[in-house]
Amino acid sequence: MRATVMRGGRLVVDTVPDPEPGPGEVLARTLACGICGSDLHALRHAPALAAAARESDVPFTLDPKRDVVLGHEFCAEIVDFGPDTARVLRQGTRVVSVPLAAGTDGIETIGFSNRYPGGYGELMRLSELLVLPVPDDLATEHAALTEPMAVGVHAVAKAGLGPDDAPVVVGCGPVGLAVIAALRLRDVAPIVAADFSPARRALAARLGAHVVVDPERERAIEAWQRTAAGRRAVIFECVGVPGLLDRIMRDAPREARVVVAGVCMEDDRIRPVLGINKELSIQFVLGYTPTEFADTLRDIAEGRLSVAPLVTGRVGVEGVAGAFETLASPDAHAKILVEPWR
Amino acid sequence: MRATVMRGGRLVVDTVPDPEPGPGEVLARTLACGICGSDLHALRHAPALAAAARESDVPFTLDPKRDVVLGHEFCAEIVDFGPDTARVLRQGTRVVSVPLAAGTDGIETIGFSNRYPGGYGELMRLSELLVLPVPDDLATEHAALTEPMAVGVHAVAKAGLGPDDAPVVVGCGPVGLAVIAALRLRDVAPIVAADFSPARRALAARLGAHVVVDPERERAIEAWQRTAAGRRAVIFECVGVPGLLDRIMRDAPREARVVVAGVCMEDDRIRPVLGINKELSIQFVLGYTPTEFADTLRDIAEGRLSVAPLVTGRVGVEGVAGAFETLASPDAHAKILVEPWR
Repeated sequence: MRATVMRGGRLVVDTVPDPEPGPGEVLARTLACGICGSDLHALRHAPALAAAARESDVPFTLDPKRDVVLGHEFCAEIVDFGPDTARVLRQGTRVVSVPLAAGTDGIETIGFSNRYPGGYGELMRLSELLVLPVPDDLATEHAALTEPMAVGVHAVAKAGLGPDDAPVVVGCGPVGLAVIAALRLRDVAPIVAADFSPARRALAARLGAHVVVDPERERAIEAWQRTAAGRRAVIFECVGVPGLLDRIMRDAPREARVVVAGVCMEDDRIRPVLGINKELSIQFVLGYTPTEFADTLRDIAEGRLSVAPLVTGRVGVEGVAGAFETLASPDAHAKILVEPWR
Repeated sequence: MRATVMRGGRLVVDTVPDPEPGPGEVLARTLACGICGSDLHALRHAPALAAAARESDVPFTLDPKRDVVLGHEFCAEIVDFGPDTARVLRQGTRVVSVPLAAGTDGIETIGFSNRYPGGYGELMRLSELLVLPVPDDLATEHAALTEPMAVGVHAVAKAGLGPDDAPVVVGCGPVGLAVIAALRLRDVAPIVAADFSPARRALAARLGAHVVVDPERERAIEAWQRTAAGRRAVIFECVGVPGLLDRIMRDAPREARVVVAGVCMEDDRIRPVLGINKELSIQFVLGYTPTEFADTLRDIAEGRLSVAPLVTGRVGVEGVAGAFETLASPDAHAKILVEPWR
């Protein structure tokens, strides 16, 4: 199959062997697959990512010295079945899936594995037990957003928002936008959001943020203070760069809860005394549960989770490397979809 | 009055002006006052402490360029009354108090203020509204432990322990020992505790830790795994040195909650990816509420909070500087009390 392959720290387009579905697996043709910030991280920090995953028991099994086909935010179509499959869903069914597979050596993450290619290639092996059919009237490109939106749904669930809590979303890239949509789904108000990029601020407003600020002009927490004073601040860190957590701890009001949804792969420096003096709490979050994933698909299909504004670009396998460069300077785009059949 | 004074980054014994009780204040004679790790920090890092307090709105108003009499863990005796006092408690009543005062410029912390000397001096000004009478049959030296024990009670309350949670106490200095006692008060079991010092491990066992380990031989989390596997780990960080939070995050099992009760005044380095991959949460804690303080006094008086083993030394004002040096290498001591009348 044709695929964009991560090889030696670079993205190249090549023809690689078709994946073969094992027992309990289906072969699926990729229809659309989002490019995720984690994919950019993986390309830049693959050895660190693999080491951190080993140290903390996360099933990112990729060996960066061998080929990896990235892509874990996919919508695909069943084209064949491996042995020991129930075949309840027929060939041609569009599906999405939590990007996990039960390999012979344990759980692996599709798109972060050498054995389970992701959606930057034409074909994938998916676990039949995990695939969910996409409702007929849901566009493929919106179904492909199930995974990144589930990340926001999960982050908001882990925040444990009470009636007196009022959120601040720091960073309006795909993670921040998913958090905003998930907050709207729960009728949380007001939602304060901040991003340096005008395009992303516009998206934040379209997805339902009530107050959107440019941190060059006003700090997020100042905007929060003038709209939600007297409530408890729940600050979603949706950027993931070194130094930001410390800045948030410095600006946070007393007893604020910080939800870290941005993935900072580098070491970071904090001043614990700021957290101590204000009795802050920090909740790190990752991924979602299978139930949250299924609920997210349903909420997108039934129009409760707003996703239409998020898709800002489409590329074939030849366009992935360029898209990575575009996404590194984030003004123009939110989500770029890879369509390997192009 | 005679006092141990923090002056120019050193502790000196001197005669300083007697404090004069203002409106709503009583004059109290110090009977006993514990030396706290925060006092050691204050001596070493006074400018940083003052700056961090300003940045995070904590009422540590000390100007390190002027004299400060430290000491906020005291039991004292009412000797006189300022104007506008109700005088419900009589002269000679033994009292303890949350170490706060309402000064003309706002809230100040007794013992971290230039205007409100702490218990390393013979006399203090206390707010009449905040003092609590010490029950007659409670020893002065145990009443003086109300403040540090309340710190443990508060840390355990903020941990929000559920029935499936099982604690690990990292560090068995005064804070760790107070946490252990507070866990026992709630009948939490098993309590795993770790400290490099044999004397502190012995104290941890006397205060009720069920499993006490030497981290040179076994990591705290390994001891936890063999006694509490299947439950959620709640890890109390009771040391406060740079690097420890990162080490705890590395060792913590998935979804562990880290309660940071140790005060690290220096910058610290963490790897956020460890927190993210395991969805850890971190709760920073400080102090206690007035209710927790009053409850702690009652629980000590009624024998539910074990404190007797904690007092390991007593000094007069001349002995404070030496006691600070002794406490910097913590093997021999838990709590040293200053008795300025000696």
